[in-house]
Amino acid sequence: MTDIALIEAAAARAVGVVRETPLLSSPFLDEIAGRPVFAKAEVLQHTGSFKFRGGWSAVSALDDATRARGVIAYSSGNHAQGVAQAAALHGVPSVIIMPRDAPALKIENTRALGAEVVLYDRAGGEKREAIGERLMTERGMTLIKPYDDVQVIAGQGTCGLEIAAQAAALGVEAGTVLTCCGGGGLSAGIALALEARAPGVVVRPVEPAGFDDTARSLAAGERLGHGSPEAGLCDAILTPMPGEITFPVLKRLCGPGIVVSEAEVKEAMRLAALRLKLVVEPGGAVALAAALFHGSALVDGPVICTLSGGNADPAHYAAILAGG
Amino acid sequence: MTDIALIEAAAARAVGVVRETPLLSSPFLDEIAGRPVFAKAEVLQHTGSFKFRGGWSAVSALDDATRARGVIAYSSGNHAQGVAQAAALHGVPSVIIMPRDAPALKIENTRALGAEVVLYDRAGGEKREAIGERLMTERGMTLIKPYDDVQVIAGQGTCGLEIAAQAAALGVEAGTVLTCCGGGGLSAGIALALEARAPGVVVRPVEPAGFDDTARSLAAGERLGHGSPEAGLCDAILTPMPGEITFPVLKRLCGPGIVVSEAEVKEAMRLAALRLKLVVEPGGAVALAAALFHGSALVDGPVICTLSGGNADPAHYAAILAGG
Repeated sequence: MTDIALIEAAAARAVGVVRETPLLSSPFLDEIAGRPVFAKAEVLQHTGSFKFRGGWSAVSALDDATRARGVIAYSSGNHAQGVAQAAALHGVPSVIIMPRDAPALKIENTRALGAEVVLYDRAGGEKREAIGERLMTERGMTLIKPYDDVQVIAGQGTCGLEIAAQAAALGVEAGTVLTCCGGGGLSAGIALALEARAPGVVVRPVEPAGFDDTARSLAAGERLGHGSPEAGLCDAILTPMPGEITFPVLKRLCGPGIVVSEAEVKEAMRLAALRLKLVVEPGGAVALAAALFHGSALVDGPVICTLSGGNADPAHYAAILAGG
Repeated sequence: MTDIALIEAAAARAVGVVRETPLLSSPFLDEIAGRPVFAKAEVLQHTGSFKFRGGWSAVSALDDATRARGVIAYSSGNHAQGVAQAAALHGVPSVIIMPRDAPALKIENTRALGAEVVLYDRAGGEKREAIGERLMTERGMTLIKPYDDVQVIAGQGTCGLEIAAQAAALGVEAGTVLTCCGGGGLSAGIALALEARAPGVVVRPVEPAGFDDTARSLAAGERLGHGSPEAGLCDAILTPMPGEITFPVLKRLCGPGIVVSEAEVKEAMRLAALRLKLVVEPGGAVALAAALFHGSALVDGPVICTLSGGNADPAHYAAILAGG
């Protein structure tokens, strides 16, 4: 199971490779939120999202012979790029299994990073897990799951170590950390890191309306799905339900989930561009949306939110910035 | 005159206030340029541009009694915000003299940062310098010029100290540093810092076509104007000619100027959003445009470019991202 020792080990393997991303702020955002808001700019991580942390952690944790046979990942895009880049930097092959309807940019980027891309049709009922396990058996590669993997969670936890250190440097010892939540890898990793390094803060996962499986699961105390079809604005975080490994961590350490509307997500994206000069994709903006527009659901004090990815489709992003 | 000692002193006064901005890269940009490209993300500085460095340096360098009477600045926008924020953080008043046709966002931001804004009509022949000197005399405030001020240049030089340290950490000891150049404050400050700390690199100022007063002046060996009207895409850097204090520094330390087209600037803005996840305004993207599209004019080796500001008008920015 992932714990602080595994996170610290992942951080040690990441030195000189994974970027320490800045914790940014703007007086204009503070004014909207009515409290200090700090944004953890994971959009500036290699491959444009925090997923490189988990990918690097998992690939670097393999023994040399296993790693040399290569790695497989299935992902709606950001995990794909993170694993592909991590494999390429290690000089080993990668096969990425992606939904056919993923943003074209994410497919192109994954190929450009050196991965072999296998597309599947998620509307047609194909199970990416089955495809991944078949390829793993046939080629002897190692499957790296996007969140239900102790080394991936440990890698995402390095983001939490940075948050703890950066918050301490700012004098922040209590308050809320909001995480953009899909399968729960980032949320679990950050929660485990902060349990050890910043126990005065509460971690709360944030999801888009209609895809609130984590919020529902936390309220029920057991893993539940969201019941919606697998399509929506925040494509990067539309997982069907919390992970088997991640959910017990979330249940033990996190406060109630928060759900934001798509209109709030788009406004958060516009404000991130205007006030932080950062390009944030919809799934990466849900935590900022909660920080800005759901303050009444939070304990008093500062709020730190992850801006977890920036791989928006350019035309779609331009339309959102223009008010669409 | 600004020298490395004055820059180091400015850096010492900036500790804990001015942000150390990251030096970012993307394999996709390296591929376009055909060489390693590093981007100094000054869009992430307080107030969205490097100008906060100079503003903080100048305001913090004043003696207490002088500073308490307040400061005046004239600026097309980014210097205004930098000085206004620096004054506000010191708890002293500021008056900002801005052209009436500056982007509305820059005027609003400057007021929101606590400054009194005085607008003038630059097409009508009003001289901002005359307005500034009159207000300075009447109110006993200190005028902080946008580039012809030794402490402002020292503040911009702190960006050069960071570049030197960050480049050394990456193993970069030779190559080119490209600066977005208006009056030459950032270019001169960086050139002075790198003369002392990274003598193997050559600094080259970059300007937009039609506003190439620095390139023309460097070629002629004397200060020349550009002869164009004061309007264009890159509003932040459309100064009439190099500064009296800055030009001798540029003449002594910088290589020939580079001129980029507006189409190249827009493409650089789109690539900064897509590959670096950064919002860059036109005037802040000229150096990246040169890095990507004018490689044949550069010596071999890596190139470091300033992304000097991100205060683009939102509607205009969205239109450029959409291909406009």
